[in-house]
Formats: sequence, C-alpha cells, structure tokens
Amino acid sequence: MSAGCVHINGEFVSLDDAKMSIFDTGFLHSDVVYDVTTSWQGYIFKLDEHLERFAASCAGFHLKNPYSKAETAKLLAECTRKARCEDGGFIHMHVTRGKYAEGSRDPRLCENQFACYVVPYVWLWGPKKSKSGVNVHMASVERVSSKAVDARFKNFHWGDLIQAQYQAYEAGRDDAVLCGPDGNVAEGPGFNVWIVKNGVCATPDANCLLGMSRKSVIELCGMAGIRCETRKVHPDELRGADEAFATSSAGGVMPITAVDDKPLGNGAPGMVTSQLMDSYWRLREQGWCGTKIGDLLDA
Amino acid sequence: MSAGCVHINGEFVSLDDAKMSIFDTGFLHSDVVYDVTTSWQGYIFKLDEHLERFAASCAGFHLKNPYSKAETAKLLAECTRKARCEDGGFIHMHVTRGKYAEGSRDPRLCENQFACYVVPYVWLWGPKKSKSGVNVHMASVERVSSKAVDARFKNFHWGDLIQAQYQAYEAGRDDAVLCGPDGNVAEGPGFNVWIVKNGVCATPDANCLLGMSRKSVIELCGMAGIRCETRKVHPDELRGADEAFATSSAGGVMPITAVDDKPLGNGAPGMVTSQLMDSYWRLREQGWCGTKIGDLLDA
Repeated sequence: MSAGCVHINGEFVSLDDAKMSIFDTGFLHSDVVYDVTTSWQGYIFKLDEHLERFAASCAGFHLKNPYSKAETAKLLAECTRKARCEDGGFIHMHVTRGKYAEGSRDPRLCENQFACYVVPYVWLWGPKKSKSGVNVHMASVERVSSKAVDARFKNFHWGDLIQAQYQAYEAGRDDAVLCGPDGNVAEGPGFNVWIVKNGVCATPDANCLLGMSRKSVIELCGMAGIRCETRKVHPDELRGADEAFATSSAGGVMPITAVDDKPLGNGAPGMVTSQLMDSYWRLREQGWCGTKIGDLLDA
Repeated sequence: MSAGCVHINGEFVSLDDAKMSIFDTGFLHSDVVYDVTTSWQGYIFKLDEHLERFAASCAGFHLKNPYSKAETAKLLAECTRKARCEDGGFIHMHVTRGKYAEGSRDPRLCENQFACYVVPYVWLWGPKKSKSGVNVHMASVERVSSKAVDARFKNFHWGDLIQAQYQAYEAGRDDAVLCGPDGNVAEGPGFNVWIVKNGVCATPDANCLLGMSRKSVIELCGMAGIRCETRKVHPDELRGADEAFATSSAGGVMPITAVDDKPLGNGAPGMVTSQLMDSYWRLREQGWCGTKIGDLLDA
C-alpha cells in the first residue's frame, strides 16, 4: 500500500506510517464512526451532505469531531491533493473515542480522535465487475439490528458482514446480501441494495445505511421520471427482480446480475440499472453536487 | 498509561509505543477476536481454558492465531513478567484480520496479526465498588444478537454496550445491563449477570459471552452445594431478585446492589454473593486452576 495520504494525530503521513494506539477504544470497543466520500475530476462529491451525516454519526455515538466542519473540509481537500487523488479518490474520515483515562472506563472522559485518509478511487468489486455485475449470496448471517447499533450512524460493526462475505466466497459468489432481524433485505458489506420490477426501483427503508449514493439514485430517478420506492424489500423480491443493483461510494451504481447463482433477467446489467449508471457517471464527470478542491484549499 | 507491557508485531514494547496500522481491518471492520485472563500470586488463571476459548473465537471468525497455543502461553507469561504483574495482572490477547491485499477486500488473503498486553489487575467498577456493589441501569439499547455476531466468540462489537453505559451514566447509575432481542437479560459491558432468588443462582444461557468467571461460579456453586441454573432470565427477575452479582475477569464476583436505583434486598451485598466472592478469592490466593508463570517461562 503506497499511493495515498493519511492525516492522523494532527499530521499528514504516508499510509505505512498511519498508526493508532491499540488502547484507543475506537479499536478495543469499535467505538468509532466514519464516513466516505469521493473525488472525481477535481471535485469532492456532496461534501456538505457527507459532513452533515458524519456529524450526525458522531452525535449518535456521543462522539465529537475535534475539528469544525470547515476545518474538516479543508483537511479532506489537503489530504486529497497530497494523495494526488483529485481526479479520482476514495476519501475516508473517522472519529474514535480515544483512550480511557487512567483507572476509568467512562467514555465521557476520553479525548476523541479524528483521522482521515485518501487513496485512489476504490471500485467495490474491482473496476471490471463493478460495471459488468456480480453474483450475490443471500447470507444466513443476520445484519446487526438497528435496535442494538443504529445503522444510520456509519460504524465499523462489520463482524456479520465479513462472515457473510466468507459464506459468499466459500460458495464461489462475489459478495453477500444480509437481511435484518425482520427477515427483509438490509444491506451488503459497504453497499445498499436495489431491485427493479416492472420499471419501478425499490430499496430497503430500514436497518441499513442511508447511503449517499442511495440518495443520489433517488435523485437520478426523479430526474429521469423513474418511479422509486423506499420500503421493506423481501429477499424473494430480490430473487425475482427484473434487475438489481448496488449503490456505494466505492463505485456508484453497480449491477447485481445473479442471486445465489440464479441470473436476474437475462443475466446482463438491466436497462434501468444501465441508465442510472450512465447518468450517475455523466453527471459526476460534470462535477455534479461537487465542491471544487481548489476552492477548498484557497479558503 | 505506563505500567504494563505489550507484545505486538513480534516485539515487546511499552504501552505508549503499542501501535497498529489504521488499515488493519481489525480496526476498520472490527474484524478481531480477543480473550482476557488474569494473573494472581504468580499464577495465570485457567490458562488452557482461556487459550481454548480464544482458539474457538478465532475459528468462529475465520481468524488464525499465527502462534501455537504453547507459543501464545509463553508470550503471555513473558509479557506478564515484563509488566511486573505476576501477582496481579489483566492479561489481554487478540488476533486481528490484518490489512487487505492491494486492490482486494477478500478477508481470506489477509495476514492475521496477534498482539497481547498485560497491565496491573483491573477492577471493573474500581477496587471499592467492585466489592461494595453497584447500581445498574436496565438499558433500552438491545445487545447485538448472536444471529448477527455470535457472542460466544469474544469480540469488540461494543457499540451497543457503550451507548448503554452512556444511558447509565446520564441516569447517575454505575453501569448497564442489556437485554437480547428476545427481551431477556443478555449481559453488561464486560460482565455476565447473575440473580439469586430463594438461595438459587441463575444466569442467562444465550446471547452472552460464556464467561470464564461465569463458569468458575458454576463450579463454586457445585463445591458449596448451591443450586445453580443457566436459563433465560427475564429483566423482572433481576428487578425482583433477592441478590444479584456480576462475573468478570476484571474483578471475579462483584455485587449488584440496586437496579434502576431500586435496592435489591437490603441494598447490601447478599449472603450468597458474599459467600461466592469469598470462596473465589480464597481459591485464587491458593493458585486455584492456575498455571505457575515461572513454569511457563522455564518451558
């Protein structure tokens, strides 16, 4: 790992030098929230919205970003430039609880720590399959309930997601989709799930991250006059969908072309999926909802 | 933080120098299992059983400890001696997934990392309250379901536990008890929960860590002829118990003397609780189920 830049403990360092204390309860108790946006053609995508969601995640976990929104925005821009990723970067930020005070385990007494890193743009399923589509595995592992850890607050509680990926890989499939405790589709490891049936798009409304790319697709549907629903989605609806796709900052809109080895439709990316992929990337090329990195650095 | 010793990346370092890469998915995805035992009067408690549970946790998460059981035992002993904690130490070990291979997010390709640390003996609620008892808060946050992340595999998915602690502290109480998705008592942050009613002890049988101190109490009950049940425990049973206590490596047997500000019994540690505390510590002083640290170092 080499291309990229990290800001941690108040300084910019290389990826190899980005270290944290093992006593930070961000590690020992996964007491941490994060957010991810991306850069493309000199713009950071939906920066304000990401920073707002990040602030909401912090508040939801009783964490406080030591940097203001404006300071955070500037750090992300500086980190993106130092990483030489202005035209295509994966921009990650997190706030950890920090170390316990000596002899205490009161999270309120910890000094919260911010870090961010930028690496070259990440395609969730690699650059090829993120465009041609993947075969997902319906995992038997249940997604962590929002009654335990609220999925709206972007967090690192991925033990279920990783074990679901193991199941998928062992079955020779590309990735996993998990259901929530109510038996309906929740999300996959790092992505929201969408189905298309009779020209109508639908995505789960609960026990999943309220993804920014998910929100972007809702907007794109609006622009294109495609009906779009956020509601409960039963796994059988995914299995029987005309098309399906995933949304993630790591790839935008990406086709799901099979479920448990069974092709959806004719097994190729669907018409609506392709239309949404095209419009997503056409708009991203034009700096859609973007903040110019140069402007942030001059601010 | 100063007294103690850490073994990480193949070397012994001070607590302040114990660092890990922020790209280890043990942090980024909480893809890590751990275990804790303790030293007392020159002995490590139930070492083989802890190493077996640790191996089971690793297997449950598809992780592999790069060290054999014998090597791990020796590292723990060396770390305990270097920390000067042979007569009272908190001995923590973990295995993290490690970094993803470049351009991959396949957990199977990661090089798993072992680390351990030893610090002076930790009392969950401080040395005083761990003996005199605490007032616990019945949290509204639900414990992560074992259908999502199996509680038998000791893990860092503590987001729910920490938020429950926040609720407890905000309510002026000492710690929190969480229920599982079925509405029955699960566990608290780092401890198993026990009730005593009409001289009979009971502790939850599901959605909780199968604690070693919990197991020790089952053994102590056997020795003392106290009836002991592992079964579902409804929160109303805790509220209406004659006595209650917690078990943890960080303190052994510790009284719970009130629930949501309401005293249990006369509000002092109960008779059965006190008897179990006494026998636990009397046996620990005698090296009960202990492996002599000197023997491990000579091996």
